[in-house]
Amino acid sequence: MKSLKIKIQMLLKLFPIIIVLVMFLKGSKSDTIYSLETRYIDVPVDHFSAMGSYKTFKLRYLLNGKHYIKGGPVFIYTGGERDITIAAQNTGFLFDIAPIFKAMLVFVEHRYYGKSLPFGNASFSTTENLRYLSTTQALADFSFLIDDLKGKIFENVTSSKIEPFIAFGGYYAGMLSAWLRMKYPFSVRGALTSSAPIFYFPGLTTCEGYYQIVTDMFEKHGQEQCVKTIKLGWDIIINQCKTKLGMDLISSTWKLCNKIRTPEDVNALLDWLANIYVKLSMTNYHYPSDYYKPVPAYPVKIFCEKLTTTFASDTKGLIQSFANALEVYTNYTGKTICNNIYHKQEDFNEIAWQYQTCTELIMPKCSTDNDMFITKQWNYTQFVLECYETFGAKLGPDWALLAYGGKNLQYYSNILFSNSMLDPGSWGGVYMNKSNETDESLMTYEIIDAPHLVDLRGSDTADNNYLVQARNVYVSTLKKWLKLE
Amino acid sequence: MKSLKIKIQMLLKLFPIIIVLVMFLKGSKSDTIYSLETRYIDVPVDHFSAMGSYKTFKLRYLLNGKHYIKGGPVFIYTGGERDITIAAQNTGFLFDIAPIFKAMLVFVEHRYYGKSLPFGNASFSTTENLRYLSTTQALADFSFLIDDLKGKIFENVTSSKIEPFIAFGGYYAGMLSAWLRMKYPFSVRGALTSSAPIFYFPGLTTCEGYYQIVTDMFEKHGQEQCVKTIKLGWDIIINQCKTKLGMDLISSTWKLCNKIRTPEDVNALLDWLANIYVKLSMTNYHYPSDYYKPVPAYPVKIFCEKLTTTFASDTKGLIQSFANALEVYTNYTGKTICNNIYHKQEDFNEIAWQYQTCTELIMPKCSTDNDMFITKQWNYTQFVLECYETFGAKLGPDWALLAYGGKNLQYYSNILFSNSMLDPGSWGGVYMNKSNETDESLMTYEIIDAPHLVDLRGSDTADNNYLVQARNVYVSTLKKWLKLE
Repeated sequence: MKSLKIKIQMLLKLFPIIIVLVMFLKGSKSDTIYSLETRYIDVPVDHFSAMGSYKTFKLRYLLNGKHYIKGGPVFIYTGGERDITIAAQNTGFLFDIAPIFKAMLVFVEHRYYGKSLPFGNASFSTTENLRYLSTTQALADFSFLIDDLKGKIFENVTSSKIEPFIAFGGYYAGMLSAWLRMKYPFSVRGALTSSAPIFYFPGLTTCEGYYQIVTDMFEKHGQEQCVKTIKLGWDIIINQCKTKLGMDLISSTWKLCNKIRTPEDVNALLDWLANIYVKLSMTNYHYPSDYYKPVPAYPVKIFCEKLTTTFASDTKGLIQSFANALEVYTNYTGKTICNNIYHKQEDFNEIAWQYQTCTELIMPKCSTDNDMFITKQWNYTQFVLECYETFGAKLGPDWALLAYGGKNLQYYSNILFSNSMLDPGSWGGVYMNKSNETDESLMTYEIIDAPHLVDLRGSDTADNNYLVQARNVYVSTLKKWLKLE
Repeated sequence: MKSLKIKIQMLLKLFPIIIVLVMFLKGSKSDTIYSLETRYIDVPVDHFSAMGSYKTFKLRYLLNGKHYIKGGPVFIYTGGERDITIAAQNTGFLFDIAPIFKAMLVFVEHRYYGKSLPFGNASFSTTENLRYLSTTQALADFSFLIDDLKGKIFENVTSSKIEPFIAFGGYYAGMLSAWLRMKYPFSVRGALTSSAPIFYFPGLTTCEGYYQIVTDMFEKHGQEQCVKTIKLGWDIIINQCKTKLGMDLISSTWKLCNKIRTPEDVNALLDWLANIYVKLSMTNYHYPSDYYKPVPAYPVKIFCEKLTTTFASDTKGLIQSFANALEVYTNYTGKTICNNIYHKQEDFNEIAWQYQTCTELIMPKCSTDNDMFITKQWNYTQFVLECYETFGAKLGPDWALLAYGGKNLQYYSNILFSNSMLDPGSWGGVYMNKSNETDESLMTYEIIDAPHLVDLRGSDTADNNYLVQARNVYVSTLKKWLKLE
């Protein structure tokens, strides 16, 4: 008996290694590290005004030319709201198809994110320094880099020209890819976008879809009771937070780094919890991954399996049950000491994204009785006011309509709008009824049952047919744009 | 005899009245005053950055709805480098065709020109205040106004929508029309441009064409000797300006407001003279006009007829002969007291245009032995340096390539690039070899023997067949875009 116990203990200790081994054997891409060269290019701080001394800053981009052969295309990922290394490591699809196309891969970072800070650590210290954070400036950066990579050769000198470029991106990065093709068609021959919600703006799309899709994921991949328990949980938590005893209970059971004390803390706790649900649904991949945090395969399913206590009357049991379930996200590695419900103050990426969603990218999110979140309305005026108080800056209304023309896409070509239907980013995505006026190269595609940007990830032996089919469509679309078939 | 002399004198005094009468009887549009309502719209000072208090300023536009019937199009002139009232009064073509199309006419002023000053009289006092003067901001203004005029109706509500809009413009205004269609295709259904040199940028077009075309006009419409005398003149003038006596001779004979004294004065004199030649050629219409200054019909011809002294040895005679000829431009009304060779200091339009041609719109002009101007090379580095000294501001190189894609027009549709072949603005214009890749709605047209923007002026009974044909092509192109035939 003792011998068996030791054997089991050893097996448990070896478990992570076995997992890695199994993943390796079945060819999973979930923890492949893609090799990339880091480069920087000097780009103008302001592309649209003449400035005193023509100020520039260093924009980071990553490069992989392993499969590139002269004459091949350049696939450029137009970085979004995170550090570009994360996008690069989670866009295995490009590495998978590079050999087919003999393509160069470029991942360009979005200004004000990662290491591409126009004013270094002072980039976020004043409204004046933040003013160059906009989609128009970001697109100009991308076009500037592409022009540079093409060798600054004029159109009549083609000998050493490196092209064509194709833009890729998911969610905000996908919006940028589409807009790059729309505003700078001479820069990229096409744009392949995944769940890019370019219609997710006031007046174009309603507000309830984002949280509804997160709920859909939990309904589909969690257990039946799970959504009900999550919905039930809000009131229990709010009630507990009315007393010091209850706040202590939650703080200790959920291993919070600092005890909840103030109403501000309670709001932060509720936001933290809602954000975990969103992130769980977004990374509900069929293999372990590390996109936001390390999570197992199907984390929503596992979360729901652990949320076993379902009776509102058993408050302590429910709080404990939530604690167990939340560890799927907060502590999959077992190394987390405590949970911080506040963003780190120096999380520049978070500040940058908040600024963007406060100025240009106003994407209304509300929750209703039909979803598993606390019911919350969305009010444009109040939203803009709060943003103004935070950043002392605002753009005028109708920005998305004015800058990118709203739903009028009939003027553009060579854009593939793909949507993963369980990605909250698919709300506000493009689903076209083909009309005679639209160029046939403007395409939409829908992937059933697919989470956030799974299509742009590396292939995995467990990929379902929907996903395999989608990627086949992507490859044949690229071949069409590149005139290879 | 005395009686006859008096009769002749009376006739001479009556001459201007007779001219007007004759013009009226023959239906000339040269001094028609078009009726326009003046309006203002609040537009953001900066369309591309969130600003502290969302600052706006009043952009002027002019409106004529005399022939407008609901359902008709809106023809919008995208104002260029001058007061918009001048463009409106010199674009009679739109007034001529408004009844055909039941069109509304709108003339929108370019920011920093005319009465559309973002910071009032302080708009030009600092580099900081000048920074919002750019083509990108101007295009965003136009798109903003069009969105407003369309009634800010979203695409699914079409009941009271006012559209389509078609952009019109000549020279810089024409560049803006083309770029508006390229960057904001959802704003205007098409762009009709006259002599819009969108290729007139370093790396795309050489520098000698502008002054060559001015020379061509003098060769074609002046007398044979005229170009030679003008070319000869430069050395005579420069030589005269080496002595006080010579400077006094020129100052008095040419009725200069202030005597030439310094080398700076001499340079200003030479620039002033060159500018008159350019303006004479640009307004060499077949009827009297008042575009820059009042001039008779065929002012180049008359200038050359008056430049009778052709011998370099007869310096005094030559200076006097130039004085007589120049009066065609400087004193056609007979009311000019003296000639100021310097721009007025408060000529904001002139400063604005100099700033633009120093930052974004760097359009290289040089003169060679083949033209009638003083030979002058053009050097990019030196030009940018001088501009930097003047304005303390510069844009990076390759601006036109980066912003508008250089010669890569194959992505766009519904633009008519017409060029008047004796308009210096036709240098750097678009002359396409139709390729299969280009949309058939991207058209070019050439008007032989036509001066600056004559095609956009009101029709005149003396218009030649080239001009009549060109306008017929414009009308049928508009009908095609508007789906009226």
